[in-house]
Amino acid sequence: MTEQIVVVEGDGIGAEVVPAAVDVLKAVGDFEFVEADAGDAVKAETGEALPQETYDAVADADATLFGAAGETAADVILPLREAVDSFVNVRPAKAYPGVDALRPETDLVFLRENTEGVYSGHEDRLSDDLSTLTRVVTTSASEQLAEYACDFVGGEGGSFQIAHKANVMRETDGRFRDTIVSVADKRGVEVEEVLMDAFATRVCLDPTQFDTIVCPNLAGDVLSDLAAGLVGGLGLLPSANIGPDNALFEPVHGTAPDIAGEGIANPSATILSAAMLLEHLGYDDEGAAVREAVESTLAEGPCTPDLGGDAATEDVTKAIINKLD
Amino acid sequence: MTEQIVVVEGDGIGAEVVPAAVDVLKAVGDFEFVEADAGDAVKAETGEALPQETYDAVADADATLFGAAGETAADVILPLREAVDSFVNVRPAKAYPGVDALRPETDLVFLRENTEGVYSGHEDRLSDDLSTLTRVVTTSASEQLAEYACDFVGGEGGSFQIAHKANVMRETDGRFRDTIVSVADKRGVEVEEVLMDAFATRVCLDPTQFDTIVCPNLAGDVLSDLAAGLVGGLGLLPSANIGPDNALFEPVHGTAPDIAGEGIANPSATILSAAMLLEHLGYDDEGAAVREAVESTLAEGPCTPDLGGDAATEDVTKAIINKLD
Ligand SMILES: CC(C)[C@H](C(=O)O)[C@@H](O)C(=O)O
Ligand SMILES: CC(C)[C@H](C(=O)O)[C@@H](O)C(=O)O
Repeated sequence: MTEQIVVVEGDGIGAEVVPAAVDVLKAVGDFEFVEADAGDAVKAETGEALPQETYDAVADADATLFGAAGETAADVILPLREAVDSFVNVRPAKAYPGVDALRPETDLVFLRENTEGVYSGHEDRLSDDLSTLTRVVTTSASEQLAEYACDFVGGEGGSFQIAHKANVMRETDGRFRDTIVSVADKRGVEVEEVLMDAFATRVCLDPTQFDTIVCPNLAGDVLSDLAAGLVGGLGLLPSANIGPDNALFEPVHGTAPDIAGEGIANPSATILSAAMLLEHLGYDDEGAAVREAVESTLAEGPCTPDLGGDAATEDVTKAIINKLD
Repeated sequence: MTEQIVVVEGDGIGAEVVPAAVDVLKAVGDFEFVEADAGDAVKAETGEALPQETYDAVADADATLFGAAGETAADVILPLREAVDSFVNVRPAKAYPGVDALRPETDLVFLRENTEGVYSGHEDRLSDDLSTLTRVVTTSASEQLAEYACDFVGGEGGSFQIAHKANVMRETDGRFRDTIVSVADKRGVEVEEVLMDAFATRVCLDPTQFDTIVCPNLAGDVLSDLAAGLVGGLGLLPSANIGPDNALFEPVHGTAPDIAGEGIANPSATILSAAMLLEHLGYDDEGAAVREAVESTLAEGPCTPDLGGDAATEDVTKAIINKLD
């Protein structure tokens, strides 16, 4: 069976780094690629940032590789995460040898709740002075995330951390925390709790205190971007939006309008996202090979200007593919 | 007129660092000090973490110096911020010569909205599965914060940054952002907008990109603690909760139960909070002198174990007071 991978380049450097990652996927497997549009450019043309065909294609695909969207990012990526029913956003943040990092010992994975919190998006303009947002936390979503987290750390005997703000959001983050702790307890997995503000200080002082961090949606957004700062920027962070039946993979970075079109974007985050895609589809050896090829290219070069080199996206991609042969 | 300063030591090292800061205040001015209780110990005794007398004393004082509370922190500090009608939490995060910092060039001030956001605390348990929290943003609170921020940066010709998540919380953070931008516009103050997740990455990569950062309540909580990580920990961060008529000053750190009672807690954050108190009461020269005395003591020693020294709280306090003579 040939798996169908939907490819959404989006805007800016999405159109440069996604084709690079597709070339890498072609080098290791036999997939059917289906192109679909989303983002600022499509909106300018059609009035809609996310065409229904794209939503449907992503929902039906075995997996999707997404690049980045510009101004319309939230209008595109939030519905697409929903299209794959994604309950967890997996965000590894790892420093690589050869890359200048504020904390070279950083090696973390964030498991970010991906459907609710402030992202469930019920907002009301109650008066001229007052607006509200309804933040949502359910036991069911927290349970699903907790089961995933327990599997992720290898089940019984494993451990993870949970970062929350249940001292203030007692009922909602309290429910989140209690549910996760109780699932972990049943599964024989140890949980360390950290307040999200304390996490922000502590991860800077010593990131090796943590390994797998389970968070509500916005906490995961901010704390994983903080970890990106510790490993040298967003250019290296891949991510996976996992649903029960399919999944969407995307670099954590955006469209980088300052360098878009120049052919010098760093494709590493997107190629590492493709490695996560391979592993998700069961191609563990291929996924590992791609990750190793990216890592050794980061260590040995060539590298793009963001990492101090002068190579083009294409040069880096070729170097990675060469290592796969 | 002798100003009345309410002193709430709270729990843990609060009982060590607050008396140190009171000694410093006594060395530079003539104040009436009134002691009041709050925290875990009072709760254990009386069932209440925050006695009504303490609330009233803080509400009536010219200024309050607060230490830290343990498990009951949120039950104590959130009502006390309300007791002084505090609309802004001022949190400087500065690296000091002589102190090991991840980013020694850090010199930031966070102006955190101090009354609403997720802290307004309307939570509901809607079903066995579902809890909600109502996040509140008003134009009036945002305007008051914006006027303060404009004054803080010196009015016309000044500039500040605003960190928010209006791409997701469009109505609430949208209102926050639009109000602040419009006040700043009228005042001739320039505003740079940054998404709070992007801020987390960028401040690690280069904190000199920012100086004064205006944030919603939770964003200010987390991002200022992140900055604490860049300057070497919470031990050095003072803060001011400013209201229209009075104010409460507190170190950003907690009760540090691991070292409480040993007399080795670092008093710098609380003494720097006392410097902010002096300036708030109009004693600008005394405030500046205290700050300089803390800074030169940090540079020259003696210092407490958290900074690699072996001095006691008392030694550091004496060294600071000696410089004031
Ligand atoms: C674009 C935005 C809606 C998105 C988010 O907040 O999830 C982004 O910051 C991310 O982390 O992928
Ligand atoms: C103790 C807690 C309620 C408090 C807050 O979240 O404001 C603390 O983290 C702080 O920043 O002063």
